[in-house]
Amino acid sequence: MSPTNARRTLLIGNPFNEYLIGDLDAFPHAKRRLGGNSSLRMAWLARPGDVVVVAQPADPAFLRYLLRLKGLGPDDVTVLVPPPGRFGTDVLTRDRLLHPEFVERARRAVEARGIEQVLPFSFEPAVAALALRLGLEKGTPGFGFLAGSGHDLLNTKSAFRSIAEGLGLPLPAGVVTRVREDAEDFASSLLAVGKPVIVKQDFHAGAHGNEILAPRPGVSQVGAPLMSVLEGPDAVRDHFDRHWERYTNRGRDYTVVEEYLEDSVPLGSEFAVADDGVVEQHGCEMRMAPVFDGIAIPGLTTPEAVLREFLDAAARLCEPVRAMGYRGLINIDGLAAPGGRVVLSEYNGRLGGTTHLHWFGENLVGPDYLTERVLVTRNKWRVPSFPETVRALERSGLAFDPVTRAGVIIACDHVRQGGAVEYCLIARDRDEALRWETRLSELFPG
Amino acid sequence: MSPTNARRTLLIGNPFNEYLIGDLDAFPHAKRRLGGNSSLRMAWLARPGDVVVVAQPADPAFLRYLLRLKGLGPDDVTVLVPPPGRFGTDVLTRDRLLHPEFVERARRAVEARGIEQVLPFSFEPAVAALALRLGLEKGTPGFGFLAGSGHDLLNTKSAFRSIAEGLGLPLPAGVVTRVREDAEDFASSLLAVGKPVIVKQDFHAGAHGNEILAPRPGVSQVGAPLMSVLEGPDAVRDHFDRHWERYTNRGRDYTVVEEYLEDSVPLGSEFAVADDGVVEQHGCEMRMAPVFDGIAIPGLTTPEAVLREFLDAAARLCEPVRAMGYRGLINIDGLAAPGGRVVLSEYNGRLGGTTHLHWFGENLVGPDYLTERVLVTRNKWRVPSFPETVRALERSGLAFDPVTRAGVIIACDHVRQGGAVEYCLIARDRDEALRWETRLSELFPG
Repeated sequence: MSPTNARRTLLIGNPFNEYLIGDLDAFPHAKRRLGGNSSLRMAWLARPGDVVVVAQPADPAFLRYLLRLKGLGPDDVTVLVPPPGRFGTDVLTRDRLLHPEFVERARRAVEARGIEQVLPFSFEPAVAALALRLGLEKGTPGFGFLAGSGHDLLNTKSAFRSIAEGLGLPLPAGVVTRVREDAEDFASSLLAVGKPVIVKQDFHAGAHGNEILAPRPGVSQVGAPLMSVLEGPDAVRDHFDRHWERYTNRGRDYTVVEEYLEDSVPLGSEFAVADDGVVEQHGCEMRMAPVFDGIAIPGLTTPEAVLREFLDAAARLCEPVRAMGYRGLINIDGLAAPGGRVVLSEYNGRLGGTTHLHWFGENLVGPDYLTERVLVTRNKWRVPSFPETVRALERSGLAFDPVTRAGVIIACDHVRQGGAVEYCLIARDRDEALRWETRLSELFPG
Repeated sequence: MSPTNARRTLLIGNPFNEYLIGDLDAFPHAKRRLGGNSSLRMAWLARPGDVVVVAQPADPAFLRYLLRLKGLGPDDVTVLVPPPGRFGTDVLTRDRLLHPEFVERARRAVEARGIEQVLPFSFEPAVAALALRLGLEKGTPGFGFLAGSGHDLLNTKSAFRSIAEGLGLPLPAGVVTRVREDAEDFASSLLAVGKPVIVKQDFHAGAHGNEILAPRPGVSQVGAPLMSVLEGPDAVRDHFDRHWERYTNRGRDYTVVEEYLEDSVPLGSEFAVADDGVVEQHGCEMRMAPVFDGIAIPGLTTPEAVLREFLDAAARLCEPVRAMGYRGLINIDGLAAPGGRVVLSEYNGRLGGTTHLHWFGENLVGPDYLTERVLVTRNKWRVPSFPETVRALERSGLAFDPVTRAGVIIACDHVRQGGAVEYCLIARDRDEALRWETRLSELFPG
């Protein structure tokens, strides 16, 4: 969004949080710092008078750039950074959000701006606790559901799969279980006939907790940071001996085991769930080549009919989500498998990696952006500095132009964190996007 | 029910199972054996051609009694008892339901009887695994949802409270949390102003995992086997130091902490959730005095308007349950608090302690049983033997009479397990029920 109502909002940029990602300790510092800084994307959603909480101090030049593109003045939005916590300023942890000094600062900002509701990236318990301390629970749609276990119901792979199965939606063959025997039997039966398997930890954000079990070397590895080749039943048993405790988060969580559909294109979508209905925001496609760390809205390779089939299935999943009392954005992922088959793969009742892109589309292009433009992103474009990048885009004529409603936007600045920025190309068609991408790669040849 | 479709059914009497009740080991043998034998109530739901799986061999005299009241012959229903497992024949554990010898026996019975679906008391993973082995998954409504984590979604107190909050249904003040600080802060704030608190473990059946925290001695203890008096903040902190690990099932589960509404009458209800809608089966009331271990349908003391308000709130909770894909019975509990206030307290997506009573009402009284009769039960009536009990009921004229559609039914036989039977009085009104109860107590004095 922006939330669909007109109330002033406390936005909290907590995409990387200790609740969704249980083992932030295990992350290398540089990766945690870079991931944590995607917090800053949240500022794109701010409206005049809103307050944005981000993990790390932003480069003032990037903030000016962002506000100018949004048509706002430098004082229209308040940006707050809480005091450092257990990971310094890498991510918005509970100790930072509930730090008495920060709560007091937030309270003053909330009063000064007349803030009535909270909109975090992810509605984890620290956000609920902060909202209660600031008196924002009444103004926040769906607060009661979200502040309980509602957030988790919409962010676990087990609940997703159980509900989707109940609705008869397209899924890969699979099981949801707490019982090792049931998980192992299912995996063994597929591996025995040469089919790869994907094991999904219940509670990890995105693909972070996924592992592919392959019956032979050479299976393509998409959607999982780990892959193990298990040849024969003994290898499967040994593997579950060693990893079942990890899969189940030491017995805490379910495990989902599914057939892994090789050579599929990952699809995404975003829906807005409100009192009076569900609105489809957009579908999208993960980029596979030549760039891997990016997204295309509505897509670059997926046939329109396939994307439509996926979006219709995803929309049906929003019905129980709305009935349960969730209010806000939900992103639903799936796969376009070979042969035109479509399956759903998970849901996440929170903001997503395309929420700010949707803001670009609706606000910088217009209500028909999905048919008039293609949005293509890359998360890691190596650049020397933010100001040099802006100048280079302007000199080359590639910078986003509000009149033609096309060009390149710097969506997030990570120069100090990792010598890179995120870009979003807003092009008239696929070919234009790919041409621009080639030209971008030539601006700072490395 | 009986399930609402006409398919032949494998009924599984697993009210006491190792999945819903995590610590069956901790139960005294006699209690586990008695609880496990309530399995036998399931036989009341059987229709001609059905197969019933029970934990313990039934007294043939009781089975004949049951079938005669149902109007069935001795061969109309097949009763199976799996081989003993880790708790002998006390309860239907996974090792028993999936014992290869039993699976084979069940397979033959399923084929011989043309069974198409499974209806367990509780759809826990061992039941799902058995249904898959017997090929009953296709014929069983809602199987995909139930075989995943769906069963758990509808049997946890956290999901209940989050969804009910989202719908704005009446609840006691409370929190659902994994964070000790949030639980303790909430409890402290209520205790500090003299209000008692109830802590609910997420996953335990019924009140088994509940504990009342009282700010002073003398709080009445209903709905929780444990009560602790905590006078002052230090006592609260000490208590959470000692018990937080247990409350959260060693970090696995949520904890629900609520204001404890003293002097409330516990209410119950049962709804049937189907593809085409939700049907209210009945409301009921837990008996408080003079008998504690019983139920009254529709009630003995609760005003009709209060019960109606409760049932209407409970019905609204069934909407998301149906949207999620659950099919079957759900029982929803609540409280009639002093001053006419009604709150909901939990849901359980499974059969309940009133399912067989509803069968009595619909089948032995008729479709208007809720207005024509009151059903009053007691779970532990000490008797010398089952045959003597039947004879005594007949001699005294108290035995259920199909013509007058009134009298006493022996609902379950626990004579060998604990020297007692369960009775259900089907009376024309409250006074008649209480008169009969007095006469029953005089049949076997001492």
